[in-house]
Amino acid sequence: MYRAPVDEIAFTLKDVAGLRRALDEGRLGDLSVDLVDAILAEAGRFATEEVAPLGTVGDRNGPVLKDGAVTTTPGWKDLYRRWAEGGWNSLTGPEEFGGQGLPTMLSVATLEMWNSAAMAFALCPTLTMGAVEALDKHATDALKRTYLPKLVSGEWTGTMNLTEPQAGSDLNALRARAERAADGTYRIFGQKIFITYGEQDFSDNIVHLVLARLPDAPAGTRGISLFLVPKLLVDADGTPGRRNDVFCASLEHKLGIHGSPTCTMIFGDGFVAGEEKGAVGWLVGEENRGLACMFTMMNNARLAIGLEGVGIAEAAFQKALAFANERRQGKASGWSGDGMAPIVHHPDVQRMLLTMQAHTRIARSISFCCAHALDMARVSEGGEKIHWQERANLLTPVAKAYSTDIGSEVASLGIQVHGGMGFVEETGAAALYRDARIASIYEGTNGIQAIDLVTRKLPQSDGAHVHGYIAELAATVAAFGKSGIDGAAAAAARLDQSIEDLTAATRHLQSMLAAGETDRALAGATPYLRLFALAAGGACLARAALADPSPQRVALCRFFAENMAGDTVSLRGQVVGGADGLLAAGRHLVAG
Amino acid sequence: MYRAPVDEIAFTLKDVAGLRRALDEGRLGDLSVDLVDAILAEAGRFATEEVAPLGTVGDRNGPVLKDGAVTTTPGWKDLYRRWAEGGWNSLTGPEEFGGQGLPTMLSVATLEMWNSAAMAFALCPTLTMGAVEALDKHATDALKRTYLPKLVSGEWTGTMNLTEPQAGSDLNALRARAERAADGTYRIFGQKIFITYGEQDFSDNIVHLVLARLPDAPAGTRGISLFLVPKLLVDADGTPGRRNDVFCASLEHKLGIHGSPTCTMIFGDGFVAGEEKGAVGWLVGEENRGLACMFTMMNNARLAIGLEGVGIAEAAFQKALAFANERRQGKASGWSGDGMAPIVHHPDVQRMLLTMQAHTRIARSISFCCAHALDMARVSEGGEKIHWQERANLLTPVAKAYSTDIGSEVASLGIQVHGGMGFVEETGAAALYRDARIASIYEGTNGIQAIDLVTRKLPQSDGAHVHGYIAELAATVAAFGKSGIDGAAAAAARLDQSIEDLTAATRHLQSMLAAGETDRALAGATPYLRLFALAAGGACLARAALADPSPQRVALCRFFAENMAGDTVSLRGQVVGGADGLLAAGRHLVAG
Repeated sequence: MYRAPVDEIAFTLKDVAGLRRALDEGRLGDLSVDLVDAILAEAGRFATEEVAPLGTVGDRNGPVLKDGAVTTTPGWKDLYRRWAEGGWNSLTGPEEFGGQGLPTMLSVATLEMWNSAAMAFALCPTLTMGAVEALDKHATDALKRTYLPKLVSGEWTGTMNLTEPQAGSDLNALRARAERAADGTYRIFGQKIFITYGEQDFSDNIVHLVLARLPDAPAGTRGISLFLVPKLLVDADGTPGRRNDVFCASLEHKLGIHGSPTCTMIFGDGFVAGEEKGAVGWLVGEENRGLACMFTMMNNARLAIGLEGVGIAEAAFQKALAFANERRQGKASGWSGDGMAPIVHHPDVQRMLLTMQAHTRIARSISFCCAHALDMARVSEGGEKIHWQERANLLTPVAKAYSTDIGSEVASLGIQVHGGMGFVEETGAAALYRDARIASIYEGTNGIQAIDLVTRKLPQSDGAHVHGYIAELAATVAAFGKSGIDGAAAAAARLDQSIEDLTAATRHLQSMLAAGETDRALAGATPYLRLFALAAGGACLARAALADPSPQRVALCRFFAENMAGDTVSLRGQVVGGADGLLAAGRHLVAG
Repeated sequence: MYRAPVDEIAFTLKDVAGLRRALDEGRLGDLSVDLVDAILAEAGRFATEEVAPLGTVGDRNGPVLKDGAVTTTPGWKDLYRRWAEGGWNSLTGPEEFGGQGLPTMLSVATLEMWNSAAMAFALCPTLTMGAVEALDKHATDALKRTYLPKLVSGEWTGTMNLTEPQAGSDLNALRARAERAADGTYRIFGQKIFITYGEQDFSDNIVHLVLARLPDAPAGTRGISLFLVPKLLVDADGTPGRRNDVFCASLEHKLGIHGSPTCTMIFGDGFVAGEEKGAVGWLVGEENRGLACMFTMMNNARLAIGLEGVGIAEAAFQKALAFANERRQGKASGWSGDGMAPIVHHPDVQRMLLTMQAHTRIARSISFCCAHALDMARVSEGGEKIHWQERANLLTPVAKAYSTDIGSEVASLGIQVHGGMGFVEETGAAALYRDARIASIYEGTNGIQAIDLVTRKLPQSDGAHVHGYIAELAATVAAFGKSGIDGAAAAAARLDQSIEDLTAATRHLQSMLAAGETDRALAGATPYLRLFALAAGGACLARAALADPSPQRVALCRFFAENMAGDTVSLRGQVVGGADGLLAAGRHLVAG
């Protein structure tokens, strides 16, 4: 059973991702190390004792749709209420509307725990958080006053309604339409698919954020507006009243995250008898500027999805490590006890577990560093603010894509450590594997994250920001190499090679973009993102070993340097030398 | 929907794996190219038209156990009968007992198709095939006469009963017991788990091959005997009669292969009222030599499991390619048509599809080469026989582990190409991902395959056999490099680097083994197996491009060389330089 790794999370926040320095420098108001520790401890307790036991229930007893209403997994409605009452939903919410205004670092740290304990459950507040942010930034004061207090407290939840059957990655193709009503509101019509928690019984009301086109909107993404469409229309006194014309038509049958309802939502199909047609909506931000508003929400959602990868990886690692220490098969030279050896003594099993552990810690570190950058951007001004915002921009696609890719890889290794027991559902290793798989797809596929990294993030500050980041990685690795820690010099030399690979690949892609060779840059995007994560990851493990030079941390860093960091050589080769062959062979895939 | 790639399979058999030369040299009796083509065409038709449409039905409507009897997926019983009547079960069976005595190459080629169409269905005859082989090699003439004709025709099916709760990878721990009866038969007692098709309604009778210990047997694997235990005892005239005391107690709830019943089997628990206790069994081979008999069966089963990986990968590639040519999202420079581009035009999607295609073709090639070696060993004598047997031994763990690993990887990429549609079960991409996962586990986990490759196969012929194989790979790549085919020289140079990496890693492991540094060799086993497959794979793609220098084949070989073969550098680094760090870090994983 999952136990929240509170100490490791606290260590990573403070000593790898920069929270300790920010606190020491007084950058985060009156937040103290003691308060951080207290919050993490209580979150760890709640995740371990209250959420985790109900996680598997959701996998086996998913939500049921009947007459337009969704009944969620037994116990989850009550769990959600206790969770929200515990203040976990309001952690980072704006103080003006009842939130605690704490840093994003605490939000991602606790989010990791909820995701480890029950990713399908954690999805609901993840979306609410995005809605809070979008409304706080872009909605009118009247909308904020009506909706934000309830969304911040978690009494109501939020959803994102983007995808339509023909419009997934490409929102240009969006068809949902909005009409202006005489009273300044709008009427929304159309179908949205894959809407997570589009309908549920956790809360009295659901606040849908919906992308749609006005009749006179220009074509493409510059003609999309964002609307707030509540499930229940809210009376003047703030009470949810009559039913709006938005309904859940069906639930998807999915590979994983069975506990979360994935809804097809129908807007304005006249389900509400006797009412004017159309779902009543309110404009958020300006007309035709909805995509910009949605991107606010999506960027932070991307980091949040990265934490799904971290959470699954941590849960899978814990499960596999416990099994490997219990299960006995065969002989092993490291085992002198009676009978068969616990399989943790077999070198091949150790390779799997160490690979899982290294990936998990790196993904956590990169994600927390990204959150730190967001926090620093919020409390900075001028050039410093730009610096931290660019840092967050740079790390967001890496945190999302790498963490979710390794979420699946680590969960797969977790199955493998379990052998045949991993393939039967009762151990729970398979459920983690099924749950993890979606995170590489939604909130922008990992291919799109890689394209975002290459085409939008490498050019930041005329290409200088990324090289500044790489120089920081190199400095960390150099400090580790000179630390005098046993074995550090050799490990640092290998990690430094990865940083050199990252530098060369970065320069190559920047020169391709500068030359207008977009396709050749795009061809290398996915291997580049992985290379970026591994080079950064080596520096993260080195920083951890510098802060805490325990034999375990130093050994893990060395293992990574000798057994995982070498991949950057071939990844660099793909980025720098693989594009032409890819594009030439790719033509033969086109039908006809 | 899957369409059997009959032409590609025929090409790989003949021009990559060596069938054409063997036929030309008359090594395979009166088998002709025309007969091979006719068999493949008819198998392709049956797999495409008859098996594939019922594949998804099995995923959604798995077998049901009631009162000890299993009812399989609707339509599968009839499908199995038609399949067996078509002669597909008897393809390679011994002619003496009604088999067609065709080469293993045809068996693996058709097995790939059944696995693509419905892996859970194909599992049943895969196990029967193993039982036929074990009985043909090790059983008494009386047992052969009674059981082989029915097993060869497919009227009865076979199972393998090895695993017990405490004995998975390590058969030393086996506890099932056998007692000698006065009439020369035995009584078997015990519980076996994970027994594929241990109970079903396809056939009148089921022939269980069961490992158990005699009361006076030595401890460990030298005290295990193999028994034949029929579900129904066979009368003197060969008719199945009264029920034997072996029953299915429960079915597993699994991640995938939902169509196949995975049974817990209870032997000798007195279910048969009024009869003497114990399941009646007959000894196969000698007492206490059961493991050797089982290994005959297991080696070929390992190759067969490799074909599951190939079959899943092919099905996933076809599905993803079709989707990528239909689904439209975004703009792409290669697309000049109206509206959004089919996603096959996006470089990142091309990378995924080409990676899938290259892995699939390599896995097929290595598996077919392994089958070719088995066929040549059967028709050879003396040193040549030893050569081919060693070749088959060498390639078996690679065919099993690499093919099944890439089965999961390719199925995962297949989901990713589908985006959100890949995560919902209706597209079938997710089912392939779920089915594929078991193949890396059963019939010896892939970690065990790697250990087998390193510790048992590298030492063959005092270490010379593997270097002879590597020299053949190098010769193929050299011929490709000198072929004058456009781009071949550059690609060959990169493939040659992989072969150099393989040579270095092989020599390192051999020297570790010679020095008694077993743990350091074992630590590198898994990366070594992958390195082996990639180096061999490059030569396979080069051989294919030499035999058919079409732009598509040459381009795929170049893509592989530039974008996939480079991994051998870091894999070599792990094998040669990763062990000490792994073993040092591994110690920290041990609890307490």
